[in-house]
Amino acid sequence: MMNTDKHIVSSFDRDLEGVQALVMKMGGLVEAAMLDAAQALDTRDEELAQRVRAGDKAIDALEEQIHTECARLIALRSPTASDLRTVLTVMRIAGNLERCGDYAKNLAKRGTLLAQMTPIEGATGSIRRMTKAVVLMLKDALDAYIQRDASVAADVRLRDREVDQMYNALFREFLTHMLEDPRNITPCMHLHFIAKNIERVGDHATGIAEQVVYLVEGKLPEDDRPKDSGVTALAAASTTGTGA
Amino acid sequence: MMNTDKHIVSSFDRDLEGVQALVMKMGGLVEAAMLDAAQALDTRDEELAQRVRAGDKAIDALEEQIHTECARLIALRSPTASDLRTVLTVMRIAGNLERCGDYAKNLAKRGTLLAQMTPIEGATGSIRRMTKAVVLMLKDALDAYIQRDASVAADVRLRDREVDQMYNALFREFLTHMLEDPRNITPCMHLHFIAKNIERVGDHATGIAEQVVYLVEGKLPEDDRPKDSGVTALAAASTTGTGA
Repeated sequence: MMNTDKHIVSSFDRDLEGVQALVMKMGGLVEAAMLDAAQALDTRDEELAQRVRAGDKAIDALEEQIHTECARLIALRSPTASDLRTVLTVMRIAGNLERCGDYAKNLAKRGTLLAQMTPIEGATGSIRRMTKAVVLMLKDALDAYIQRDASVAADVRLRDREVDQMYNALFREFLTHMLEDPRNITPCMHLHFIAKNIERVGDHATGIAEQVVYLVEGKLPEDDRPKDSGVTALAAASTTGTGA
Repeated sequence: MMNTDKHIVSSFDRDLEGVQALVMKMGGLVEAAMLDAAQALDTRDEELAQRVRAGDKAIDALEEQIHTECARLIALRSPTASDLRTVLTVMRIAGNLERCGDYAKNLAKRGTLLAQMTPIEGATGSIRRMTKAVVLMLKDALDAYIQRDASVAADVRLRDREVDQMYNALFREFLTHMLEDPRNITPCMHLHFIAKNIERVGDHATGIAEQVVYLVEGKLPEDDRPKDSGVTALAAASTTGTGA
């Protein structure tokens, strides 16, 4: 039960708990989809990739269900300003998760194509490690939401920088492979998109964490988190590229 | 005034019109930012690129304002199911526009970097044409919203396929340049990201159009629109890539 300081649980709280259970279920599906897609990529498991692709419909359906339930909750319970903020946050979080589900599906699709190409040494293992890092961020961001824990949320935001660094390192690796041998260009472009999308999942986890801070403290975190790291990585690499 | 069939305009309608005015303002800023960023890229106009980057803050602020106004509107007016759906749609549209603003900013950033590299023949002109096409989609999607016109919205959805085709054609062009000369790899990866992001703005315009259909007809369009065209393009190109 969420409001331990209240003796009577309101209808609103009961309804909200129902919606939150759906969000947690959605989070579980998204986390599993990401990990499965990365595993399918790493082990060239076409059947698993296919399962991830098919599973995205269930994630999309959950988002619709959450939106409908939230709208019903608002219409029925006319929540106060603070409760309303919570409902709107839930809807935003569901939106973040839906995007992450799309990225998992995309990862699975590209994995299927990559399975038909010459492997790039070490790449899929690195992708899998990066995936594990962002999935953990996602899990912690959702836990922070359920616990209304701004310090866990702040920690998630910090970890986004590590993911950005992993992306930048991978990006440079792919560029080196492409410059070495033109036959690596196509697989490396797939891998680069995959890495970029995983980094975006990290951004969504950070977005959820920021919503939690907003919910608990009433305002968004003030310091800008680093963004558009892809641009920075390409800028750093442009010397290599143009000089080759 | 929206409800021409009503003689008395409710407080809700008046408030909604205020929020809608903010959405149209936000749409205007996003459209200008996209066109300016594409022009800055094409003419290597660093000052214009800088203006686009700085302008994103105003777009973000408008989204926050729209969210706050919508929450206030819901709390104050306790709208009916159908009016509530409209308010939630407005919030989603503002979310779509905010993402488009981010893409414009990113385009401007990459434009600044590309201005320091060897030009890729014909590329920035093509990017600018593609930008004009998606900006028109965005404009029409917002008009469809204001007019509650499902047929204009349906037309926007159809045009997304043309944008996908433009993206696929550009993608193949960039790949050819990369295979021809490794020095083209870095600029072409920037250009490819730019093209992908413009295609995503088209997806957001389509998303807005789908919300309009939902609002007018009470359900989302049933046929799946084509997605993940990037994957398809890379699949088609992989023969070229691995065979080079």
